[in-house]
Amino acid sequence: MAADRLDLRPRLVAPVRLAALGDELLRGERADTNSPWLAARLAALGHPVASIVQVPDRRGAAADLLARWREEGGTLVVGGGLGPTPDDATREEIATGLGVPLVEHPRAAAWIREREARLERRFGPGTLRQALLPAGCEPVFNPLGTAPGICHAAAGRLLLVLPGVPHEYRAICEAVFPLDAAAAAAEDWTLSGLGEDRLAGELADFPGREALGFYPNLAQGHRLRVPLAGVDREALAARLAPWLVSQRGESLAAVVLDLLRARGETLAVAESCTGGLLGARLTAVPGASDVFLGGVVSYADTVKTRLLDVPAGRIADDGAVSEAVARAMARGARARLDGDWALAVTGIAGPGGARPGKPVGTLHLALAGPGVERHERHQAGWDRDGNRDFAVRQALTLLWRSLREAP
Amino acid sequence: MAADRLDLRPRLVAPVRLAALGDELLRGERADTNSPWLAARLAALGHPVASIVQVPDRRGAAADLLARWREEGGTLVVGGGLGPTPDDATREEIATGLGVPLVEHPRAAAWIREREARLERRFGPGTLRQALLPAGCEPVFNPLGTAPGICHAAAGRLLLVLPGVPHEYRAICEAVFPLDAAAAAAEDWTLSGLGEDRLAGELADFPGREALGFYPNLAQGHRLRVPLAGVDREALAARLAPWLVSQRGESLAAVVLDLLRARGETLAVAESCTGGLLGARLTAVPGASDVFLGGVVSYADTVKTRLLDVPAGRIADDGAVSEAVARAMARGARARLDGDWALAVTGIAGPGGARPGKPVGTLHLALAGPGVERHERHQAGWDRDGNRDFAVRQALTLLWRSLREAP
Repeated sequence: MAADRLDLRPRLVAPVRLAALGDELLRGERADTNSPWLAARLAALGHPVASIVQVPDRRGAAADLLARWREEGGTLVVGGGLGPTPDDATREEIATGLGVPLVEHPRAAAWIREREARLERRFGPGTLRQALLPAGCEPVFNPLGTAPGICHAAAGRLLLVLPGVPHEYRAICEAVFPLDAAAAAAEDWTLSGLGEDRLAGELADFPGREALGFYPNLAQGHRLRVPLAGVDREALAARLAPWLVSQRGESLAAVVLDLLRARGETLAVAESCTGGLLGARLTAVPGASDVFLGGVVSYADTVKTRLLDVPAGRIADDGAVSEAVARAMARGARARLDGDWALAVTGIAGPGGARPGKPVGTLHLALAGPGVERHERHQAGWDRDGNRDFAVRQALTLLWRSLREAP
Repeated sequence: MAADRLDLRPRLVAPVRLAALGDELLRGERADTNSPWLAARLAALGHPVASIVQVPDRRGAAADLLARWREEGGTLVVGGGLGPTPDDATREEIATGLGVPLVEHPRAAAWIREREARLERRFGPGTLRQALLPAGCEPVFNPLGTAPGICHAAAGRLLLVLPGVPHEYRAICEAVFPLDAAAAAAEDWTLSGLGEDRLAGELADFPGREALGFYPNLAQGHRLRVPLAGVDREALAARLAPWLVSQRGESLAAVVLDLLRARGETLAVAESCTGGLLGARLTAVPGASDVFLGGVVSYADTVKTRLLDVPAGRIADDGAVSEAVARAMARGARARLDGDWALAVTGIAGPGGARPGKPVGTLHLALAGPGVERHERHQAGWDRDGNRDFAVRQALTLLWRSLREAP
């Protein structure tokens, strides 16, 4: 069944309050990431949030929130407490708070049965109970789970109760609070190859620089938030050209795939220390398959020789983390997978594995392409995860620069 | 000057409420990480937190919090609003709320002057203003900044106001709420293969089940928080044996690598829809290299035939997402990489790519090992990322079960 095109933006009333239910939030075992995410979205829509609260997922918690909302009016968005287990008492408390009974909603029941059929599973009674809604409330379609959201709108009031699982919470909010391009007050740009310090230096005399927001991201490329007003975006783009990957917030991987697609060319990878992460990042982009052929994860040296034709003598002489091996990996992947381009990564992610002259964080990247071969050496300075993320980003940056320069 | 040995643990009174002040928290630009951190610490000390709230850093916010605390009693810890800028009005509002004037506290003034001398700087008047405290309040030493905390303790009440800068907030709390080693109250178990609904069914009659916390994780295996008291952990482990991956919170990938290491065996992978994510998860575990050989990311069909010896006819007849191709990928990876075990994943991650009879989320997994070959078909029901995470977890679960049963 198609999702209802329910748009709750016109029903948003101030003050807007967000609440998250969950004992684990109050034991500090998990942070409430849903509320800040929704607060940012509502702020962009012109509905600033007045308060956010985390309360236990116990009997009485939802009732207290509801009592305040009934007294004060405005909008209340509650996340959590709609799971299939009996201790998820939120729906009962809302019904009690609204003074209505719980009744099975036919549309909600149909969604659950359709999901059951699609997943070829048999849901338990707890899941079927998720079709029970306080009388007079509307179910809100959940594209990623069984528990529908619950919406109650009246004059000067809006109540929305959502499952707390982050991807379900967000998917529902994206549908009911759609963000128009026109609603945005700023653009997200993607940068790679310069850090916050260097950026500050490059922009030291740039008018309006204090209005820019810099959000470092080792893995996907840094994000620069550029307001639509008060900044000369054309001049800024010119100043940042050597590092400016996208003016539409796309990831480095998506931009590289687009550049290759426009050229009708294909890509293969050969990975050692990243263990598959470079391929995983590229294939996280929907539609990667018309450009990305695949790759070889050559974690063991025998795999480098068997599947990438890296000469065993090279590994013995120079070590697996070396320029010669990185270049041979790229050439091998290009030949074996018959790609136009091949990108290779070898390095020491840590915490172990350092060798004399090759500290943890040593990276050798190589790119082989039509009439092109390039090598870069980098030194990463984070932990294992950070070093691997950095390696992927540097590899994609090497390919991005080379594609920009390619004829 | 040495920090005062101020221990506020004996003065903690229920209910304990935490509050964070900051406009940026309500615009979603920054999450409140202080409160969950302190909540975990206080829970470990036996003082569970009753609520956490984020409110704007505007005139009136601290006054509202204080009014509720005066009415209700208990403990209130407020973070934020003690900075040097004039819009940080918290200290004035506390003084007003307590009905006392602001007066310079000699100890607080001395700390600021000493810090000025140590850093060889000259502080501005805003910083010196941080020595002003509501009369009758105690300053709390801040080892990492100029703004001291403010403490007010009376019968049945404790108020603590702290700077919001995370490292200052935490350093002060570590000093005034010291944590003994004996304080750990629960274990984290890792489960795979059953969801929340099924778990509730399995434990329907299990004494103490309401004290367990279940945290779903598609990628790494679900987490079950098991308190050390009030639950028969041995009986629980027996009941959950078919799904119990670890009683020490290890990830599924780490457990699988340990099982293989103990057997002296190696692993290779062949990935299609996961694009390298399975290898990336395995190699995220430090020390994976003595077990994990590597793999082939066969995103394109030509790579399946060239590098994994999957018969082209099989792909033409059954499709790339099929039992026959998954089995051939596993056999091919095992032979080409010379591994003891090989795990293969092929599927449709979405959003595109559905075929008649093969909806988005269709997964075929295969495992080839010493005298063993297994296949599983699964149906995933999330978005692209979720389906890929699910595929990795199911593949690792298949290997984990097979290793437990292997002679």
